[in-house]
Amino acid sequence: MDDLAAGTASAILGAANNHPMNKLLLILATMTLAAGAGRAQLAGTPELVAPGVWRVTIGTPEKITPVNTRQVSPLTNALAALPAVTDCPLAVSGSVSGRGCRVHLPLADDEMIYGLGLQFKSFEQRGRKKTLRVNADPITDAGDSHAPVPFYVTTRGYGVFLDTARYATFYCGSTHLQPAAAEAAGSSAATEVEVPEAQGVDVYVFAGPSLREAVQRYNLFAGGGALPPRWGLGFWYRCDAGFAQTNVLAMAADLRAEHIPCDVLGLEPGWQSHAYSCSFAWSTKFPDPRDLIAQLRRQHYHVNLWEHAFTHPSSPLYQPLQAHAGDHEVWGGLVPDFLGAEARNLFADYHAREFVALGVSGFKLDECDNSDYTGSWSFPELSRFPSGADGEQMHSLFGLHYQNAVEQAFAQHQQRTYGLVRSSGALASASPYVLYSDLYNHAQFIHAVPQAGFCGLLWAPEVREAANPAELVRRLQSAVFSPLAMVNAWYLKNPPWKQVDRAANNAGQFSPAAGQVTAQCRAVIELRMGLLPYLHAAFVRYHQEGLPPLRAVVMDYPDDPATRALDDEYLMGDSLLVAPVAVTDAAPATDQPVQRTVYLPAGDWQDFWTGQHYPGHQHMTVTVALDRVPVFVKSGAILPLAQPTLSTEEADSWKLTAVVYGEGNQPATLFEDDGAWEPQLTKVQLAWDAAAKSGRLTRMGSAPANAYTVTEWKAMP
Amino acid sequence: MDDLAAGTASAILGAANNHPMNKLLLILATMTLAAGAGRAQLAGTPELVAPGVWRVTIGTPEKITPVNTRQVSPLTNALAALPAVTDCPLAVSGSVSGRGCRVHLPLADDEMIYGLGLQFKSFEQRGRKKTLRVNADPITDAGDSHAPVPFYVTTRGYGVFLDTARYATFYCGSTHLQPAAAEAAGSSAATEVEVPEAQGVDVYVFAGPSLREAVQRYNLFAGGGALPPRWGLGFWYRCDAGFAQTNVLAMAADLRAEHIPCDVLGLEPGWQSHAYSCSFAWSTKFPDPRDLIAQLRRQHYHVNLWEHAFTHPSSPLYQPLQAHAGDHEVWGGLVPDFLGAEARNLFADYHAREFVALGVSGFKLDECDNSDYTGSWSFPELSRFPSGADGEQMHSLFGLHYQNAVEQAFAQHQQRTYGLVRSSGALASASPYVLYSDLYNHAQFIHAVPQAGFCGLLWAPEVREAANPAELVRRLQSAVFSPLAMVNAWYLKNPPWKQVDRAANNAGQFSPAAGQVTAQCRAVIELRMGLLPYLHAAFVRYHQEGLPPLRAVVMDYPDDPATRALDDEYLMGDSLLVAPVAVTDAAPATDQPVQRTVYLPAGDWQDFWTGQHYPGHQHMTVTVALDRVPVFVKSGAILPLAQPTLSTEEADSWKLTAVVYGEGNQPATLFEDDGAWEPQLTKVQLAWDAAAKSGRLTRMGSAPANAYTVTEWKAMP
Repeated sequence: MDDLAAGTASAILGAANNHPMNKLLLILATMTLAAGAGRAQLAGTPELVAPGVWRVTIGTPEKITPVNTRQVSPLTNALAALPAVTDCPLAVSGSVSGRGCRVHLPLADDEMIYGLGLQFKSFEQRGRKKTLRVNADPITDAGDSHAPVPFYVTTRGYGVFLDTARYATFYCGSTHLQPAAAEAAGSSAATEVEVPEAQGVDVYVFAGPSLREAVQRYNLFAGGGALPPRWGLGFWYRCDAGFAQTNVLAMAADLRAEHIPCDVLGLEPGWQSHAYSCSFAWSTKFPDPRDLIAQLRRQHYHVNLWEHAFTHPSSPLYQPLQAHAGDHEVWGGLVPDFLGAEARNLFADYHAREFVALGVSGFKLDECDNSDYTGSWSFPELSRFPSGADGEQMHSLFGLHYQNAVEQAFAQHQQRTYGLVRSSGALASASPYVLYSDLYNHAQFIHAVPQAGFCGLLWAPEVREAANPAELVRRLQSAVFSPLAMVNAWYLKNPPWKQVDRAANNAGQFSPAAGQVTAQCRAVIELRMGLLPYLHAAFVRYHQEGLPPLRAVVMDYPDDPATRALDDEYLMGDSLLVAPVAVTDAAPATDQPVQRTVYLPAGDWQDFWTGQHYPGHQHMTVTVALDRVPVFVKSGAILPLAQPTLSTEEADSWKLTAVVYGEGNQPATLFEDDGAWEPQLTKVQLAWDAAAKSGRLTRMGSAPANAYTVTEWKAMP
Repeated sequence: MDDLAAGTASAILGAANNHPMNKLLLILATMTLAAGAGRAQLAGTPELVAPGVWRVTIGTPEKITPVNTRQVSPLTNALAALPAVTDCPLAVSGSVSGRGCRVHLPLADDEMIYGLGLQFKSFEQRGRKKTLRVNADPITDAGDSHAPVPFYVTTRGYGVFLDTARYATFYCGSTHLQPAAAEAAGSSAATEVEVPEAQGVDVYVFAGPSLREAVQRYNLFAGGGALPPRWGLGFWYRCDAGFAQTNVLAMAADLRAEHIPCDVLGLEPGWQSHAYSCSFAWSTKFPDPRDLIAQLRRQHYHVNLWEHAFTHPSSPLYQPLQAHAGDHEVWGGLVPDFLGAEARNLFADYHAREFVALGVSGFKLDECDNSDYTGSWSFPELSRFPSGADGEQMHSLFGLHYQNAVEQAFAQHQQRTYGLVRSSGALASASPYVLYSDLYNHAQFIHAVPQAGFCGLLWAPEVREAANPAELVRRLQSAVFSPLAMVNAWYLKNPPWKQVDRAANNAGQFSPAAGQVTAQCRAVIELRMGLLPYLHAAFVRYHQEGLPPLRAVVMDYPDDPATRALDDEYLMGDSLLVAPVAVTDAAPATDQPVQRTVYLPAGDWQDFWTGQHYPGHQHMTVTVALDRVPVFVKSGAILPLAQPTLSTEEADSWKLTAVVYGEGNQPATLFEDDGAWEPQLTKVQLAWDAAAKSGRLTRMGSAPANAYTVTEWKAMP
C-alpha cells in the first residue's frame, strides 16, 4: 500500500519539471504521508492556455508528449476569433499510482463521444473501451489504429485531449464505480482514462460551445488544418510497383490519351534492391530520374515517390543515421529517431537534395505504423531511442515526426507538398498528409472519411482492383468525395478501368467493355475536377478556422439524435451532404440502380444532380443509378464547378459554372491560391440576385495571375 | 534521459522490499548517477531455489505476483527426484526503466518455444509477439487468453517463468537488435520480455534436461498436478440453465434410463433473480435444494453448481464483502478481493456452510476472466483493490484465487473436488479445476488439450449442440480423451443425442434417429469409463511427478522435428497417442469414414482398436469410421480398461480387462484411490508373461475396500 500512497503524494506535490531534486522532495513527502494516507482524487485546476483551451495538470507529466515534441505552433488569433467561452466546461480530476495515471472525466447521461483518432470499427465511442495502440491492421474494435489520437469531443460541446504518447486506455462510460467510489470521484458516469507508466498527464479541455467548435479549437491548437496545393486535390494515379522509367512514361502518355484527368503520378523507385528496408537510391530501372521527372512535369504531372523510413545498410543515410536510431532493426534497417533534430535534418537534407531538387512533389510514407497481427514486424514497444523515447512513445509519434522530417525537405525549397502516410497521431492537423491503409473494406473506407475528421486527420478511400466494373465506379465515387482522390494501382500493370480483374489486368487482357468503363470512370474523375474550387475553399477554412473540409453530420447538427450514428454519409464543405453507395458483401455492386437510405438533417435540401427539393429532418430512400452519387445541396447555396481539365495546371481549370440552388441566397466563397509556400489567398465571392436572375463575382483585392471567372450561371430553382 | 538513468540506478541498487527509505536511497543514487549514466544491462546472478530451479532477480520485483500470493507450496522432494542439473541452463539479463522491466533471454537458432498459457491460435510461439492479457474471447493471436501464463519451455530443455501478474509482452525471437545492441546484450536472437510498470521481476529458470522435465519442474514448483476424485474423471452432464428442481430430477432419471454413464450433474441455481450478478441464494425453482442433492447423491450423481463471483446487493455476502472488494462494479455486483484472506474466508465459509454441507461436490466458476471484445464487461485494469492490487494484476490472479477461495470451502469439509473455471493463470497446476470457454471451434478445442499442458493447465473440450449427429459423436470423442468429459447442455432442454438441433431440441422434437445416436454416444462415453483407471493413474503421475496426463507429442519427443507443430494429436498417459477427428468448416462431420493424417513418432505403435502394428517415425493417412477415434498404443503396453458402469460408484468400475499390446513387456501401473482428502493411493502393477501368455496383478500393500481385479487378459499381439 505504500507504493500507492507514494504515487498519490507525487501527484499532489509533483511539479511540472522532472528535476531529480523534485523527486527527492516527493519521496521525502511520501515517507511522511505513507502511513495511513489514502489515494486522494486530485481535482485539477484548469489553467487557460489559449482562448477556450484549458490545461489541467495531473501529477508530473512526461517529457516526451505530442505537445512537448510539436513542430507547429497553435493559431492563437484564430482561436480568439471563435465564440468566447469563459469557463472550462469540464471538471477534470485524476490520480497517480505505480501503474500510471488515471483521469476521471464526468459524462452526462445523454452525452455521446466521438474521436480517438482513426477508428474503423466504431463511430460513437460511448460504452467502449479503447486502447490507443498503433496498428496497421486493426482486427477488433479495441482501439488499434493507424492513427490513434487521445482526443475526443462530445455532443455537449467540448473536447478533451490527453497530452500523451502512451497507449492510453479510454473507458468511454464503460466502467461502473461502486457507489462509494463514485461519490468520492464526484460523478458516477465518466470517461475514465488510464495513461500507462506516466506519473502524470496534462489534460487539455477545448470549449465549444458546440461540438463543431470544439473540433475547430483542437485543430487550431494543433496549428490549423493543412492546405494542400491545388494539384494535390486533383486526381492521383499510383503506378505498378514494378514499373521502370519507360513504363511510367507510357502510363503518363496513356492517361492523357484516354483523357483521364490526372495531377499526380505515384512511383516506386525500387529502393529495396537488397532487402525490404530502403536504400533511398534509385534502382537501375530508373536510369535517369531527373529526366523522367522533368518529362512528367512538362506534361503537368506531379511526382510522388513511395518510401518507408527503415534504412538499409547500403543507403547513404545509414552511416550518419547510426547514432540517431533505435536499438532495434526493422527488416534489417535502422529506425531513425525522428524525435531528434539530427535524424530529421539528415532525412530532410537528403530528401531536399536528392529528390525535391529534382522536382519530386511529394512522398508516400509507408510502413510507419506497426502490427501485432501480421508477424509483429515493426520495432517493439520496448525499443529505446537516443531522444529518450521508448518504442511505445515512438510508435505514437513516429508517423507525424516522419511527416515533419520530409516536410522539412520541402520547406528548404519553399515548396508546398501533399502526400500520403500510413500513420499519424495527435496534433497532426497542419501536416499535409492523408492517411491510407492496405485494408479494402469499402464501407469502412467511407466511414473513415467523416470519422477521421473528429481528430484533425484526413483519410483517402483509395481504389485498387474491383470485383466488377460497377464496383470500380462506386469506389471511385467515394474517392472523389474525399481529401485525396486516388487510384492506387500498385499491383496492376494497367488502369483498372481497362480490366478490373487483377490477374487478367496484369496479363494485359483488357475487358471488351474497357471503353465504356473508361468513360464512366472519366466522368467520375471529372466530377472531382469540377468540385476542386469548392473543396479547395473548404480546405482554406480548415487551414484558417480549423473546420474539417470533410466532416460528420453530427458535427454540424449535434442536437439532432438522428445524426449521431451517421457514418455512411458526411458533409463536404458547408453546402454538400454526400452519401456514397457502399459496395459490401451483402450489397455487391451492380450496373442497375440501387437503393440506399439517406438522412437529411433540418433544412431544405436539393438533389445535386436534378435540383429536386427534399425537406430535411427525415430519413428517405433514394434510388441511385450507377453514374450518380447521392449528393444533396443546401438550398440557397451557390456551387462553383470548375471546367474539368486534364490537370489543375490548365488555365481552363479556373473557369467556373456557378450552379445556383434554390434562392441562391448563400454566397459562395472561393480562394485564388497562388501556390506559394506562404500562399497568397485572394478571396472571391459569388453571389446571386434571385430577382434579377443574375450572378456576380466579387474579388477582395486585385486579380492574381490565375483568377477565377464564371463562364455560366446555372439556376436549379 | 535522467528518468531512464534513474530507472537503471533503481535496478542496480534496488533491494527486495519497497520500504520508502530504500526509495530515498535510490533517488539519492540517481541524482549522483544521472549525469552521463547509461542504461546498463543487468546480468542476473542465478540463485538456486529448489532442485533444478534458479531465480534471477532483475531490479526490485513487485509485491503482488503469482509466487508472492501463492497458496500452495512447491514439492521440493519430487523436484529432487528428477535428474540432477548442476548449472542454470540460461543466461538471463535485464534492465529497468520508467516504463517497466525488460528481460533478455537468449535463443539458439534451432530452438522452438511452447507455452505462455492457454493459446488457442498458435502452438509454436517462436517469431510471435504475445501480450499475456486475460480475455474470454481471444480474437487474434496476440496473446489474449482465458489463462495466460508467463512461462514457456523450449526444445533445448529448459523453462522460463517470469513471476509477474502484469500483462507482460513476450517477443519470442520476433525482435531484432541492432548489431551494437546485440553485442551489448550478449546474444542476437532472444526472447525479449517486457513487464509493464514493474521496477523489477524475478525470473525463474527450470532445468530439464529435457523439455518434458522442464514442464514437470514447473508443475512441481507450482505444487504438483491436481488429482481429481475418480468421479471427476467420469462423465459430466450440465443441465439447461432454466431447469427447476423437478427438471433436474427428471434428467437424472432419463440418463439412468438411457444407460448413459454419468457421474456429475451440473445445475444453475438461479442466482440471477435481480441482475446478472449473483445472490448465491437458490431461486424459488429450487424449493428444497438439500433434498434435491440428497436424491441425486443416492443415484450416484455428484452435483456441480454454476456461479460467478460478482456479488449482487441482495446477496448475504454483499454486506460483509463491501470492505473487501474493488472500486468498480461488474453487472451491479461487487468484485471480491480474493487476494485478501478476508474475501477468501467469506466466500469459503459461505460456500462450505450453504453448499458443501448440503452435499454439493463442486462448482463451475464462470465469468472470472475479462473481455475487451464483447462490451468490455469485467472490472477495468485501472481498478483498485484493498489488497493493493490493481485491476491488471487482479485479472491475472483472479481465476486462480477464486479457485483457491472455493477450494478452501472443500478443505473445511476435508473433501476433494473437481470443477470448472473460465480463467486461470500461473502456478495453477495443483488446483483441481479445468478450463472451458464459450467458444466452440472444434479444431481449437482439440489443440487446447495438449497446448494447455505446457503450463500446468487442464482444458475441457466440452460438447454442446451440433450441426448433425456425426458432429456430436466426433465432438464427444475428443471430449472423452480430455481431462474432463462433458456435455454442456446449458441451452438445451434435452440431451443432444435426442436432437442435435438447438431449436428442435428445445421444442421437444426428437430426431427419428434418436435411439441410434444415443447408442453411438453411449458407446463413446463408455469408452471414457473404460479408460478411467488408466487416466486416473496418469493424473497420479501429474500429482506426484508433475507430468501432464494429456500432453503434446513434442514434450516426449523434443528432438524429432516432425513433432514440433503437432497440435491435432497428443499423448494421454504414457502409452496412448490420440488423434481425434476434428469437425471444421472445411471438413464437416459425416456418417461415412473419413481420412486424417497422423504422425507417429519413433517406436512400434499399434492401433488401439485392432492391434494392427505401425512403425513410427512416419506420417500416415488413416481411414476412420464414425465409431472410431484414431488412437495408437505403444506396442508392449498393457492397457487396463474398466468395465463401463453408469457411475464410478458402482463396484464393477474396479473390474478390469487388461489388454496386452505386442509383447506386453511394459507393466501398467494403477492406483487404488480411497477418495479421501489426503488420499491413500495403493499402487498396483499389471504385468504380462509373454512366454506363459499369462498376466498378473501385483499390489504394493494390502488391498483397500475398493480394489482393482482383472477379469480378463486380452492379447493384441
